[in-house]
Amino acid sequence: MNGAQSLIGTLIQSEVEVCFTNPGTSEMHFVAALDREPDMRAVLVLFEGVATGAADGYARMSGKPAANLLHLGPGLANGLANLHNAKKARSPVVNIVGDHASYHQLLEAPLTSDVKAFAAPVSHWIKSSPNGAEVGHDAAAAVRAANSNGGQIASLILPADTAWTPAHDYGVYRAPPSLMPPPAAAIEKISALLANGKNTVILMTGHALRARGVEAASRIAAKSGAKILADTFNARTERGAGRYAIARLPYFAEQIVETLAGTEQLIIVGSQSPVSFFAYPDIPNYLVPEGCATYVLATHGEDMVGALEAVAEEIGAPQDPPGKMDLIRPDLANGGDIATAVWAAMAHYMPDNSIIVDEATTSGIASEMFLANAPQHDYLQLTGGSIGIGLPLSLGASIACPDRKVICGHGDGGAMYTLQALWSQARENCDVVNIIFSNRKYMILEIEIMRVGAENVGPKALDMFDLGRPNLDWCQLAGGMGVHAMRASNVDEVNEAMAHCMSNKGPHLIEVII
Amino acid sequence: MNGAQSLIGTLIQSEVEVCFTNPGTSEMHFVAALDREPDMRAVLVLFEGVATGAADGYARMSGKPAANLLHLGPGLANGLANLHNAKKARSPVVNIVGDHASYHQLLEAPLTSDVKAFAAPVSHWIKSSPNGAEVGHDAAAAVRAANSNGGQIASLILPADTAWTPAHDYGVYRAPPSLMPPPAAAIEKISALLANGKNTVILMTGHALRARGVEAASRIAAKSGAKILADTFNARTERGAGRYAIARLPYFAEQIVETLAGTEQLIIVGSQSPVSFFAYPDIPNYLVPEGCATYVLATHGEDMVGALEAVAEEIGAPQDPPGKMDLIRPDLANGGDIATAVWAAMAHYMPDNSIIVDEATTSGIASEMFLANAPQHDYLQLTGGSIGIGLPLSLGASIACPDRKVICGHGDGGAMYTLQALWSQARENCDVVNIIFSNRKYMILEIEIMRVGAENVGPKALDMFDLGRPNLDWCQLAGGMGVHAMRASNVDEVNEAMAHCMSNKGPHLIEVII
Repeated sequence: MNGAQSLIGTLIQSEVEVCFTNPGTSEMHFVAALDREPDMRAVLVLFEGVATGAADGYARMSGKPAANLLHLGPGLANGLANLHNAKKARSPVVNIVGDHASYHQLLEAPLTSDVKAFAAPVSHWIKSSPNGAEVGHDAAAAVRAANSNGGQIASLILPADTAWTPAHDYGVYRAPPSLMPPPAAAIEKISALLANGKNTVILMTGHALRARGVEAASRIAAKSGAKILADTFNARTERGAGRYAIARLPYFAEQIVETLAGTEQLIIVGSQSPVSFFAYPDIPNYLVPEGCATYVLATHGEDMVGALEAVAEEIGAPQDPPGKMDLIRPDLANGGDIATAVWAAMAHYMPDNSIIVDEATTSGIASEMFLANAPQHDYLQLTGGSIGIGLPLSLGASIACPDRKVICGHGDGGAMYTLQALWSQARENCDVVNIIFSNRKYMILEIEIMRVGAENVGPKALDMFDLGRPNLDWCQLAGGMGVHAMRASNVDEVNEAMAHCMSNKGPHLIEVII
Repeated sequence: MNGAQSLIGTLIQSEVEVCFTNPGTSEMHFVAALDREPDMRAVLVLFEGVATGAADGYARMSGKPAANLLHLGPGLANGLANLHNAKKARSPVVNIVGDHASYHQLLEAPLTSDVKAFAAPVSHWIKSSPNGAEVGHDAAAAVRAANSNGGQIASLILPADTAWTPAHDYGVYRAPPSLMPPPAAAIEKISALLANGKNTVILMTGHALRARGVEAASRIAAKSGAKILADTFNARTERGAGRYAIARLPYFAEQIVETLAGTEQLIIVGSQSPVSFFAYPDIPNYLVPEGCATYVLATHGEDMVGALEAVAEEIGAPQDPPGKMDLIRPDLANGGDIATAVWAAMAHYMPDNSIIVDEATTSGIASEMFLANAPQHDYLQLTGGSIGIGLPLSLGASIACPDRKVICGHGDGGAMYTLQALWSQARENCDVVNIIFSNRKYMILEIEIMRVGAENVGPKALDMFDLGRPNLDWCQLAGGMGVHAMRASNVDEVNEAMAHCMSNKGPHLIEVII
C-alpha cells in the first residue's frame, strides 16, 4: 500500500464518498488510487472554483463532507473564493491539495508556492503530511476536523512523495462528539428573558433553520410573543408547505434598522449581532438598536435545534401553534415583470422536495413571495458574498440528492464566474434547472454606486457594470458545454420553458432576458 | 479631492494608464473616480483571473504595470493563480484590492476576510492604506515597488473609507533606479571563465531574451564556443527572421539531463540552476550535471542585456556573427498532423511583429520548428505552470499593442479556466486569433500518470483526464461571448480558417479538432 491508496481507503472508511477534482501531475498517484475503490465517486470539474462550490453544496445537502482534490497552490487559489463561501456556510469540507514532493519544494520550480499560506485564510484546520505512512492518519484527522464544531474547512496538504512512499494501514476515523445543547443554566436564563415582557427578536441561522428548529422557534414565538428572524443569507433553510415560515433580515442597512427598531433584547442562535453587508458613509454599520441587549442561546458548535426545543419546553410553549404554511401553487403569470413570472412558474411547477439555489440577487426579489407556500423544499443561498457559487452549489447538491430536482436562479454576472459547472452537470447528468436572469448588467452595483454617495458617476463608471457590450448568449454558452438551453424573452416563454424543464430530467438552462 | 480621486490621479502621474477590473460595492468610489480621468483606460473583465492574466500580458509587452482593481479577499483570490504566473514572469503589476471600511472589518460581515493573507503568497510588496490622505502616497509607492528589481507584484489594499475620506494631493512618483549591470569584477570573472576551455552553457531568461540580449549571447557563443540556452518557459522572447535564435531547455527531466550532459560550467543570466518541473520517483530533480560549476552573471534585478554586452566586449566577441535567422515562410500543409498544420499556417500567414502566446502544451510541439524562421515576433509563454493564462495574456498584450496581431495557441483544458477573457477581447475589439487545440483531454496527464509510475491506472483514473463527455463546443462558447469562431476538423479547414483570421482584424477563435 502506498500513501495514495491509504488516503482513498481512509476517506471511504471515514464516510467520505465523493471527490470533486481537477488534478495535476502531483496528484497522479491519488487519481490512480481511485480505481481501487469503487465506493469513491470522482467528479471531474474544469475549474477549481467549481470543485469547492460543489463540495459546499454536497455538504449542505448530505450533512457530510466531500473531498476536493486540487493541484498545488494555484489550483487551491482558484478554489479559495468558494471555500470562503463554504466557510461562512459552516459546511464541512475535506480540502486536499497536492504539493510538490517534499524534497522538490526548495528548488523553486515554476509551480512552487506556499500552499499553506494560500490555505490559511479559509481553513479551520491545516496539515501537511510528512510521508506516506502518515497520510491515512492525517486524512482521518482531516475528516474529523471537517465534521467538528458544526462544520469546518479542513485542508490536508499532500506532497507528491507522500503518495508514492509506503503506507502500512488506513487511518482510523474517530467521529467528533455529537453537538450538545447549551447547559441547563443557559436554557433557564434565556427562558426567563422570554418572560420579561420586553420586545424580543430571536435571530437564527445555520442548522437552526432546519424544519425542527424553525418549528421550535415558532412555538417559542407563539408562547412569548418574540419575533423570529433568520439571517439575510443562510446555508440551508427547510421551508414550504406544511412547515413553519421564518422571515429573513433584509439586505440593506436602513431596512435592517427599520426591521429591528424597538427591539429591546436580541437572542442569537448560530448568528451574530446584525451588521451591514458593506459600510457606507454616514450610515450605521453595527445594527443592534441602541440600548438593545444581546444574548446567545447557542452557537454553531452547539445543538441549536436541541437548544430551541429545550427553551420551548421550559417556557411551556404550545406543541402545534398555528402558522404552518398552506400549499399555494400560484397561477402562471400572463404578463407583468418577467423575473416575477419566473418565481411564480417555479412555484407553480416545482416538484415536492426540490432544492432551490438562489444567487439571483436583484432578480430574486419575488422569490420569497411565491416560495413560502410552495411545496416543501430546501433553500440554499450565497453565504459569503463571493459571487459565482450558484452553478457549482447546484452541481454538488444534485450529487448529494440525485433524486431531487435542483432549481438554481442566478444573476448573469455571478454565473459567468464559474460557468464551467454546467459541463460537470452535463457529465454527471444532474437533474438541475439553471435559470439565468440576463439583465446584462451588474445591477446591484448600479444601485450601490448611488448608495455609497460617489460623485461624478459618468459613462465610464457605468460602463463597468454593463454586461451588454457584447451581449452574453447563455444558450450558446450552455450548448457549448452540453447543457440543453432555452431562451425566454417574455412571460409566455418563461412559462413554456419552465414547464418543459420541470417535467424533463437532466440539466437544463433557461436564459431569461430581463 | 477624496482618496479615490487621489488614487486614480496618482496612478496616471505614475504612468499607469490601464486598469483591468471587476469591481464591487467597496470599490464604487474608485470606479466613480475613473470618470474624472480620461487618461485611465478601464477594461472590464467577467472574472478576476482574467484581470490578473491581462495585467501580466500588458506588462510583458508594454514594459510597465497595469493596475488591477479587485473586490475584497475573494475577488483577489480569484486572481491569485495568474498573479502567481505574473510573479514568475517578473511582470510589474499594481494589484489594487478593495477591502471593507476600516471600522467595518472587525464586524464579521459575510465578505470579511484576511485580504493581506490572501495577497501575501504572490506579492513582493503589500500595504493597506490607513485613510484617504495616504492613498496617493501609497499608490506612488506601489507603482515604484512594481517597477523595482526588474518587475514585482505590488498589492495595495484600500479599505473602502480610504476612498471617500479626504485627500490633499496626488502621491509623487519616484521611479526606482535603473537596473545596473553587475560590477566590472563579475564581468571579468565570467569573461575569464569563458576562456578556460571548459564545456560551457549560458542559461538565460527574462529580459536577457530580448533581441539585444540574445544577440550579445550569440556573439559570446561565437567567440567562446559556449552554448546558449533559454529556460523552458519564458515571459517574452524576441525572435524570428533577422534575429538570433536561442534553443530552450526541454520540458522533461530526462531530456534536460541529456541536453546538459557534459556541461562543466553553467553561467546563469536571470535564470536558476535547472530543476525538473515536477519530481518523479527515481528520477533526478536537481539537474545540474555532477561536477558542473555554476556561476551567476546577472540576476533579474540587474541589467542582464548590459551584462551580456559587457562580457561580449570583454572577450572580444565578433560584432556580427553568423546565425541570424532567415525568413522562411513554410508552405501550407496539405495533410498530416493537424496540430503541426496549425503552426505551419501560422508561420505562413502571420504578419510582421505578431505576438504569439503559447499555452498549447502537448499541441505545441511543432511550434518551434516553424516559428524560428517566421517574421519577427514576440513569444509569450506560461511562466508559472498555472494553466489558464493564455486568453487573458492575449487580451493584455493586445491592449498594450493594439496595432499588432496577437495569436494565441491554447490547449482546451487550460483555456476553459479563464474563457471569460473572450468576452473582454470582443468588448475591446482586440485583434486576437485564439486557436483552441481541442484534443478533448488533459493529454499531458495521460503522459504524466505513466511517468510517475502510478499503478492500477484504470478507467476511473483515465476519466479524470477526459474532456470529451460531453464534448466542449468552442464555437458556441466563443459565440456566446461575442467572438467570431470557426471550426477546423482537417488540414484544409485549418488553412482556410487561418487565412481568414489572419487577414481580418478583431477577435477570432479557431477550434481545431485534434
